[in-house]
Amino acid sequence: MLVDGTHYKTIWLKDDHTIQVIDQRKLPFYFEIKDLLSVEDTYNAIKQMVVRGAPLIGVTASYGMYLAALENHKNKNWFAGIKEAADYLKSSRPTAVNLSFALDQQLEKLKASDSSEQAINIARKTALELSDTETENCRRIGEYGLPIIRKIAKQKRGGPVNILTHCNAGWLACIDYGTATAPIYLAHDEGIDLHIWVDETRPRNQGARLTAWELGEHGIKHTVIPDNTGGLLMQRGMVDMVITGSDRTAANGDVANKIGTYLKALAAYDNNIPFYVALPLSSIDLNIENSVKDIPIEQRDKKEITHMEGISDQGIQQIRITPENSNVANYGFDITPAKYVNALITDKGVCKPKKKEIKKLFSNE
Amino acid sequence: MLVDGTHYKTIWLKDDHTIQVIDQRKLPFYFEIKDLLSVEDTYNAIKQMVVRGAPLIGVTASYGMYLAALENHKNKNWFAGIKEAADYLKSSRPTAVNLSFALDQQLEKLKASDSSEQAINIARKTALELSDTETENCRRIGEYGLPIIRKIAKQKRGGPVNILTHCNAGWLACIDYGTATAPIYLAHDEGIDLHIWVDETRPRNQGARLTAWELGEHGIKHTVIPDNTGGLLMQRGMVDMVITGSDRTAANGDVANKIGTYLKALAAYDNNIPFYVALPLSSIDLNIENSVKDIPIEQRDKKEITHMEGISDQGIQQIRITPENSNVANYGFDITPAKYVNALITDKGVCKPKKKEIKKLFSNE
Repeated sequence: MLVDGTHYKTIWLKDDHTIQVIDQRKLPFYFEIKDLLSVEDTYNAIKQMVVRGAPLIGVTASYGMYLAALENHKNKNWFAGIKEAADYLKSSRPTAVNLSFALDQQLEKLKASDSSEQAINIARKTALELSDTETENCRRIGEYGLPIIRKIAKQKRGGPVNILTHCNAGWLACIDYGTATAPIYLAHDEGIDLHIWVDETRPRNQGARLTAWELGEHGIKHTVIPDNTGGLLMQRGMVDMVITGSDRTAANGDVANKIGTYLKALAAYDNNIPFYVALPLSSIDLNIENSVKDIPIEQRDKKEITHMEGISDQGIQQIRITPENSNVANYGFDITPAKYVNALITDKGVCKPKKKEIKKLFSNE
Repeated sequence: MLVDGTHYKTIWLKDDHTIQVIDQRKLPFYFEIKDLLSVEDTYNAIKQMVVRGAPLIGVTASYGMYLAALENHKNKNWFAGIKEAADYLKSSRPTAVNLSFALDQQLEKLKASDSSEQAINIARKTALELSDTETENCRRIGEYGLPIIRKIAKQKRGGPVNILTHCNAGWLACIDYGTATAPIYLAHDEGIDLHIWVDETRPRNQGARLTAWELGEHGIKHTVIPDNTGGLLMQRGMVDMVITGSDRTAANGDVANKIGTYLKALAAYDNNIPFYVALPLSSIDLNIENSVKDIPIEQRDKKEITHMEGISDQGIQQIRITPENSNVANYGFDITPAKYVNALITDKGVCKPKKKEIKKLFSNE
């Protein structure tokens, strides 16, 4: 999407030896492009969260394999070298599913190559194709979600469509478009008047830092609010719909997403406001039946609670915000039961969060 | 309550010329006592939020009138001087109801004094009595709430009673005990095993900064969590009850309280967890019938959203946490409909949040 009027993706091939990414650790305070020139650069970019978001991590790793093929060009055991690079890259964020997927996909394709020369071409093509597929999947989520926004705009007759979103399920987490934001970008680009309520999304503030920044750069009206605020806005008729992303969705339509999503779903339900979840169909896990019990909830670094990062005249800084002796807890996501979700917006179509309907979308694949 | 093993109130008379207060702007990073030696000191303490919380503001103003009587001792027009001080103090935070109440109460009593000497004694007595009354009201809220915690502890048979609270309705907002925290302190002091989930309470972080600090100093186990977290904890059976305070409560039992309270009430209801509101009966406004429509919601300083205060090795600091060009909104409170509240715990007894039952408590006065 747009950054200061220029179209960007989150990752791209600058020239035959250089991958470029946006350094997301510095947003929204600085917009900096980082070169990835080696497998090691790629490893560090993933590990240090220069890039984050499942699709982007996958594509970065895939490009990393292209750099691995280049690095092993003159190596007699070039395939062993590439395999080693894959193991190394896999260890950068071991729990990221897209990471393993992208690396395994590359290895599978590279197995077929007859020469290190050919491996370079295959790795490059595979990375570019994965990037294009991820972009296209997001664009499709946008296409399927767009009519929902159009309909609300039509019913409203005047005034912007007010959409609340939580966390960053935006293009910065993907390659372009985003998931929850894809229908928003498409609606904006076709001229629908929008205003987005952006949940700050403590503890990592991905809403305040990333979603607000990307919406602003693309020229979309938005307002950052504390995570506590959405309920009041819904009580007062100031929200027309909610769209969030999803980390994982169960076969019964229960949605695991960034902590706090469930609270917004409850408030939307209590105020008759439609609540949508936008996601690639691939993130639905048909093996999970009873999500509240079955999905393990990751506990994250306590420093995300005790400290806050921001900018002062001394640059990006961290300050402590809790008492030194207080215990803190940092749970990564919660579960929104399917009954509070109006529909899932996927790259294969829109469906009710019901087992049968979800299965039907899979069979359309 | 206790601070590092010593019993404190939030305000006290140190000697005949000195009021002392805890400088709450610096908590939890520094524990500093501040002397108020003049009407001007008192004005500044209220205006600059050295003291905050409705009951504490009222008592501070009342003590300020004692200092006003001292300052006007040798003044021929001593009563005019005292009246002027009251007007001055009233302007420190014009919307604080307890402030006007305390000042008017002092003026009413001081009118009867024959000499500036007598005025000093009356003002001093009035301030001390108001402080005692506020303390006693909180203690009574504690006494009425205690059996509720006792009962849960008994039913649980082992493991702490897990109580979630939002914002700071603690002794720091009052003189001692607090409102939401009063039953907690009394339960702890009688040996009931407790663990408190403390909502951080963005944007001003009164939970993370004040509630966590006061619970910790009193020796009560607690864990600070982002405001997003409570829903998950309730889904997983990790919360036994919720207690919050209330800014204003309507005749029908609807509760206006710190933004985000409503979201916790929805989650408690969805998971069959009892939700209590602790408040002095005096904060119930029988003139408000339809609270969601009728109660105006204060919008506060945007800087509370765009910036965060904390501590670094350079002392207390503010950092910016949102994009420079993003709009932000800062609503002060939301409305929790009575149907989500199990009971009101007041200084006159516990009642269902129903018009008839509330009126009955008033008639007990």
